Amino acid sequence: MTGPIGDLIVSDMAKFSTDLDSAFSALADPTRRAIVGCLCEGPKTVSELSAPFEMALPSLLKHVQVLEHSGLISSEKIGRVRTCRLDPHALQATEAWLRQHIATWERRLDRMEAHIARMKRKD
Amino acid sequence: MTGPIGDLIVSDMAKFSTDLDSAFSALADPTRRAIVGCLCEGPKTVSELSAPFEMALPSLLKHVQVLEHSGLISSEKIGRVRTCRLDPHALQATEAWLRQHIATWERRLDRMEAHIARMKRKD
Repeated sequence: MTGPIGDLIVSDMAKFSTDLDSAFSALADPTRRAIVGCLCEGPKTVSELSAPFEMALPSLLKHVQVLEHSGLISSEKIGRVRTCRLDPHALQATEAWLRQHIATWERRLDRMEAHIARMKRKD
Repeated sequence: MTGPIGDLIVSDMAKFSTDLDSAFSALADPTRRAIVGCLCEGPKTVSELSAPFEMALPSLLKHVQVLEHSGLISSEKIGRVRTCRLDPHALQATEAWLRQHIATWERRLDRMEAHIARMKRKD
């Protein structure tokens, strides 16, 4: 498809791909996965998030920034307190990508099993 | 938990975490996700995998190596032909991690909704 609509679809697909790149990349770190895990239970301030980690605050803030940049979380600073919350859409998009591909693989297995069963009946 | 069993559990958890690190990291690239997508439909030789990509074979082989190292795929060379196949366990482990965390987030939403409904009934 060419023209403005085609360009829009290609640009949307490229954006979706970039979003997946940065979401998967952000999740490739145990500290960032632990932060996402904490935020699944509700919004937390940066100091609440830092409590379980033996890590200097600037290092934790870098992880928070990577997660924000990937769209997995968002944060808001009121006064001196920054509160982080999960943005579920990026997490759901990553899970949907994996789920769809696992389903494709499982359908192939089902077809193979059905084929083997047919061959056995013929014998 | 301390002692040999505790150490074993900690070492298993660390291995699981490292496995997730390398699986998420491997999936943070559109070419590697496309290779995984192809292999969900069945084993492919490296030249079959390279067909849809405008990419030199050595570059494609590097992506194949990253995917193998992450445990997402395996490959076997017979004569001059290397055949790649999906190893579903790593894909399933990554999806399970995401699914569990999305479920935690959804349960929290359900509890919040139930709480709001109770407050409304009280009013």
